[in-house]
Amino acid sequence: MPSAEAMIAAVHAYVDGFEKGDLEGLVALFAPDASVEDPVGTPIKRGTEAIREFYTFSVTSGAKLELTGPVRCAGDSAAFPFHVKMAFGDQKSIIEVIDVFRFNEDGRIADMRAFWGPGNMKPG
Amino acid sequence: MPSAEAMIAAVHAYVDGFEKGDLEGLVALFAPDASVEDPVGTPIKRGTEAIREFYTFSVTSGAKLELTGPVRCAGDSAAFPFHVKMAFGDQKSIIEVIDVFRFNEDGRIADMRAFWGPGNMKPG
Repeated sequence: MPSAEAMIAAVHAYVDGFEKGDLEGLVALFAPDASVEDPVGTPIKRGTEAIREFYTFSVTSGAKLELTGPVRCAGDSAAFPFHVKMAFGDQKSIIEVIDVFRFNEDGRIADMRAFWGPGNMKPG
Repeated sequence: MPSAEAMIAAVHAYVDGFEKGDLEGLVALFAPDASVEDPVGTPIKRGTEAIREFYTFSVTSGAKLELTGPVRCAGDSAAFPFHVKMAFGDQKSIIEVIDVFRFNEDGRIADMRAFWGPGNMKPG
């Protein structure tokens, strides 16, 4: 099980991946057989190719993440609140999200679940 | 699946249960066969009796909850960030927590997982 420090570092690397637009850096945080459920309740994306495809749009659209509170580490998992900040021309918007990452023994993300819904999308 | 409004109302009822010290009100939010994992990684408490026993200490110790951000509703689940505020004599402390509630068809909590660790315990 990774340490709390390692899980917090992975969360910051995730935020930084968006900041830098570094798609491959983001994908490398995930285990090869990882699953992504974003938002929770929608079909699960599984494996490196599906995860790369999923993040390509977010990264190329220039979405940035901003942590809005501390990372909570418990067992093999980390949960954290953040805003996704997007701009389409002059139109700015945010989505209020909580992500939960579960890590494998190697410190890579084994599954990611993102909690957000229509009520969390707001003008930025 | 309960509506987002119903899930948000349940979260507020949970916070209010602590505010009022209403143990039975808290227990009634959970399905009879619900499970509670608090914090994540520790043994799961299952069923009404185990859940009542679990919350008895928190409620009688006077712990209060304060939401620190919006509830995120996704599918059958709600995630929310909050502080647990406690006082032992002059000693005040907070724990930064993220809870995830999954609801059943009746709008009761089917399982609850609380994410927090030693790094989230601070002077209040």
